[in-house]
Amino acid sequence: MSTDTGTKPLVLYTTGTPNGHKVSIFLEELKEAYGLEYDYVKIDLSKNTQKEPWFIKLNPNGRIPVLVDRSRNNFAVFETAAILFYLQQHYDKENKFAFDKDKDPDNWSELLQWIFFAHGGVGPMQGQSNHFNRYAPEDIPYAKKRYIEETKRLYGVLEIRLSDRDWLVGPGRGVYSIADVNVLPWVRIHSFAGIESLDEWPRVKDWLNRASQRSAFQAGIKIP
Amino acid sequence: MSTDTGTKPLVLYTTGTPNGHKVSIFLEELKEAYGLEYDYVKIDLSKNTQKEPWFIKLNPNGRIPVLVDRSRNNFAVFETAAILFYLQQHYDKENKFAFDKDKDPDNWSELLQWIFFAHGGVGPMQGQSNHFNRYAPEDIPYAKKRYIEETKRLYGVLEIRLSDRDWLVGPGRGVYSIADVNVLPWVRIHSFAGIESLDEWPRVKDWLNRASQRSAFQAGIKIP
Repeated sequence: MSTDTGTKPLVLYTTGTPNGHKVSIFLEELKEAYGLEYDYVKIDLSKNTQKEPWFIKLNPNGRIPVLVDRSRNNFAVFETAAILFYLQQHYDKENKFAFDKDKDPDNWSELLQWIFFAHGGVGPMQGQSNHFNRYAPEDIPYAKKRYIEETKRLYGVLEIRLSDRDWLVGPGRGVYSIADVNVLPWVRIHSFAGIESLDEWPRVKDWLNRASQRSAFQAGIKIP
Repeated sequence: MSTDTGTKPLVLYTTGTPNGHKVSIFLEELKEAYGLEYDYVKIDLSKNTQKEPWFIKLNPNGRIPVLVDRSRNNFAVFETAAILFYLQQHYDKENKFAFDKDKDPDNWSELLQWIFFAHGGVGPMQGQSNHFNRYAPEDIPYAKKRYIEETKRLYGVLEIRLSDRDWLVGPGRGVYSIADVNVLPWVRIHSFAGIESLDEWPRVKDWLNRASQRSAFQAGIKIP
């Protein structure tokens, strides 16, 4: 059963992984910018709580994080990036963290492009690197190497993108947006996936440092 | 160098993979619905054309497909799902294949949720199953099994979603949308990934059959 007994407008079911932190960082940004309040419930992956029937009703994929919006008829949202878009649409009314779909369609498209790049690339591939370097019951050098190399290649793509900008999307040197929030929590734990340092990608390293100085980023990575 | 010498409003750089077919199916749908015309250029993956400098300028990730919109100042879009959203925004003016972000925010969010589910799950995991079951230079039973099992689990999530509907998103039994286009080309080639039949997921099987009867779907999977 859910242990949700809070009363704030939003509740996040989460745990301390990069996917969980993407959402908690953004919720903290919205709290700072607009005073948005939320509750969170820690999901114990070791007990497979995320596979229990009540959770599967919220997310048939049985994964954290899931957001439930009590203020909008308990509408449930799964998939980290979809949660970021949902929160941005409903709670970032001044478009501080994204771009207007209709008025600024090119930046809106670039936002989608970089979010999908991370969602289909960095997340799953770095996740596989974690698996084979940390959790797999067999030692499989081929798979370890495959996923570390692919993760490094993807960091190289981010390095190209950041060659003349501070943030992934936006005019000029870019604007801190949900595109950055969507991938930085993965880059942050590179060492966990077997990548010792970010020295090979100095612009990626600076980008992470820049975001890490934000108080909402620091608060978000402490949740739950 | 690009061999692009066409003059139609759009040009798609692609090859005959599920990711390529997502976009060509949707372009064929837009051609049928609105008369939209496009050129395509076949990218030869065996020659690593997608890693050449001219292509990296279009997509720093060096992957097909890429769409270039000649009618909008040669705006380039990479990541299959981002291309679907771009085409839908600019060329599906009657919202036949998606939902209005502002007027129908809940279906818009569900569209994003199911597209991210496929983009971060079915695509990358079935792609890994292809790799270990078809291409890897070593026989690694653990990895073969890992990715076949995960792909099957993800098909099971689609089966849950389709338990009371014909299409992934939309009111009632759903509406054929870019959420379906975004994942069906992967489901279509399940046998390539080592999944012999869809009998285990009868609703997924029906869903694929339903879409396969569309003439645009049939035309799209023949491109290039």
